[in-house]
Amino acid sequence: MKKKIAVLPGDGIGKEVANGAIEVLKAIGQYYKHDFEFEFGLIGGEAIDKCGTPLPEETIELCRSSDAVLLGAVGGPKWDKNLPELRPEKGLLGIRKELDLFANIRPVQTYKALQEISPLKGEKIEDVDLVIVRELTSGLYFGKPSERIVSDGEEAAVDTLFYKRKEIERILETAFQMAQKRRGKVTSVDKANVLTTSKLWREIAEELASKYPDVTLEHMLVDNAAMQLIRMPSQFDVIVTENMFGDILSDEASMITGSLGMLPSASLSNSGLHLYEPVHGSAPDIAGQNLANPVGMILSGALMLRYSFDLHEEARAIEKAVKHVLDSGKCTRDLTNNEGAFIHTTEMVEEIKEVL
Amino acid sequence: MKKKIAVLPGDGIGKEVANGAIEVLKAIGQYYKHDFEFEFGLIGGEAIDKCGTPLPEETIELCRSSDAVLLGAVGGPKWDKNLPELRPEKGLLGIRKELDLFANIRPVQTYKALQEISPLKGEKIEDVDLVIVRELTSGLYFGKPSERIVSDGEEAAVDTLFYKRKEIERILETAFQMAQKRRGKVTSVDKANVLTTSKLWREIAEELASKYPDVTLEHMLVDNAAMQLIRMPSQFDVIVTENMFGDILSDEASMITGSLGMLPSASLSNSGLHLYEPVHGSAPDIAGQNLANPVGMILSGALMLRYSFDLHEEARAIEKAVKHVLDSGKCTRDLTNNEGAFIHTTEMVEEIKEVL
Ligand SMILES: CC(C)[C@H](C(=O)O)[C@@H](O)C(=O)O
Ligand SMILES: CC(C)[C@H](C(=O)O)[C@@H](O)C(=O)O
Repeated sequence: MKKKIAVLPGDGIGKEVANGAIEVLKAIGQYYKHDFEFEFGLIGGEAIDKCGTPLPEETIELCRSSDAVLLGAVGGPKWDKNLPELRPEKGLLGIRKELDLFANIRPVQTYKALQEISPLKGEKIEDVDLVIVRELTSGLYFGKPSERIVSDGEEAAVDTLFYKRKEIERILETAFQMAQKRRGKVTSVDKANVLTTSKLWREIAEELASKYPDVTLEHMLVDNAAMQLIRMPSQFDVIVTENMFGDILSDEASMITGSLGMLPSASLSNSGLHLYEPVHGSAPDIAGQNLANPVGMILSGALMLRYSFDLHEEARAIEKAVKHVLDSGKCTRDLTNNEGAFIHTTEMVEEIKEVL
Repeated sequence: MKKKIAVLPGDGIGKEVANGAIEVLKAIGQYYKHDFEFEFGLIGGEAIDKCGTPLPEETIELCRSSDAVLLGAVGGPKWDKNLPELRPEKGLLGIRKELDLFANIRPVQTYKALQEISPLKGEKIEDVDLVIVRELTSGLYFGKPSERIVSDGEEAAVDTLFYKRKEIERILETAFQMAQKRRGKVTSVDKANVLTTSKLWREIAEELASKYPDVTLEHMLVDNAAMQLIRMPSQFDVIVTENMFGDILSDEASMITGSLGMLPSASLSNSGLHLYEPVHGSAPDIAGQNLANPVGMILSGALMLRYSFDLHEEARAIEKAVKHVLDSGKCTRDLTNNEGAFIHTTEMVEEIKEVL
């Protein structure tokens, strides 16, 4: 199989983890005889510095001409005071919107080897295997108006939570279909006792449920969901929710695994061109120090093999290698309470390649 | 001291826990020679059933003519299919708005006796003592428009996150002042890398910080905050945030204590008339079975003594009594993993009164 993969490393630790994922994918390609070609593009702060915009036209074109996109992370204090249009995050939000990546899939698993570092008790996280399906191209992130205004002579600001029926339908369909291939349960998270958009969301979920008789649908208010994710995470199979709620809940859920550095994500479109990025950010505080955990990015690569290229065996090989390395007690700095006993980003990548 | 207290028990377990709080307050009144007079009003589902509206005019008048308000909880499946204006939650949102209760104070503490039931590891929750200051009368809960619309011929819905400068200023001032009396740290939680309202929020926080040189201000993105609350809750002193973010984070934070049933809250206005309610909801599943945990409501009563009546010794007496009863191993059903070993709502109230 021959595939062209666009790589947008971005800022901070984005580069380090993207390199790690590329190495692992190359190793897989060699072993399974696939020809993965990687081409690099600019996004985020680095793109601002070099091209004056967080999402250059060439980057979009590169993505469109590729079979899949790998993204590291964007952002950093250097650009925090920039005007809204010149912030690294605009690049990330922009590419999501440009490629219509409406379904962000964030699987959360636990690893026996990491039980020690999870703030949750061991018995709480055993057997957790859930997926958060986050709507990614609408909702509070993209609704207009989103601006400063003057209201009754006073400074004010407004953001808008807006959803059209079709936007809600397609993300819910994604969740139902995912549940069919898993344990058959969808938890739709909303705030229907307060928000109008949530009421529409809940109605549509009810309508669609009849198309999926093999899936059980439950509704949960977002405040309760934030609690239940910690109280009893094993109750969940597929969680589907609005953009902002999904952002909050998925970072929270990382504590089940033990470190945000572990979590991969896939952002799917209906066009077939998908993007893969770790859930973690650019971590400017440890950037360039070879301290980042590359696993979230490497597992994002595995998701790419599975969702974009249908290479299930190859994806599983990566996931198994990660598990094997962790089981052998190797861990990056975020994965241990013991300051002395960690390996570096590049070493972690080597270990995983070795097992492959 | 003679005080008139409006009691709005509401729905579900609201009545049971409100009764518990009244009994404890009466006991305190007797002991310390205060004359607390309780007068009852309707709110939520019960008000809909009896008066056709979730917030009758008489209830508002009762509150206005009282020195403080105690509220149980509202809502239940019976009214879930009602039109938006006839839902119990409208009563709660309505009274918050009517009385301009803009600052919702939600303290989160841990009790040694409850370490066993917290899903978090013991060493994570030791010494946690934080307060969430939630903006309560604006933001995503109250912004207009909040309605169904037709957009490009398609069904759609919209909610609005709107803040004026003064609304942000007053809630931040509350947080800074609270931090001055505590450990001097404010964590302002926003989503400034995406939301315009958050950028304004952050700017104002920076401005105000110079008025409070004895307080350290830090900013934290809401997704990170949802993670940090579980990762290392002891890092927080005062957390201040937008209405919806505060709703989500405070329910999540209940898992630090171990049960939502433990958490009290105070909703403060600038008029001096404040409202006190537990953080938990109406729990229709256990309503009327004498299974509810009355502690959240009883501790809300203690907050009333402290914030509305300046009765600090009396407030402390209640808090100590609660701690004492828990330390002695007594607990309601939500506070134990051992199905056989719990006491009922009324028994818990008796135990607390006894210690007083
Ligand atoms: C960087 C930021 C804009 C982004 C988001 O909020 O979506 C990040 O937190 C994420 O979850 O991918
Ligand atoms: C019942 C509901 C409207 C309410 C809220 O969302 O504010 C509740 O969850 C709370 O936290 O007090």
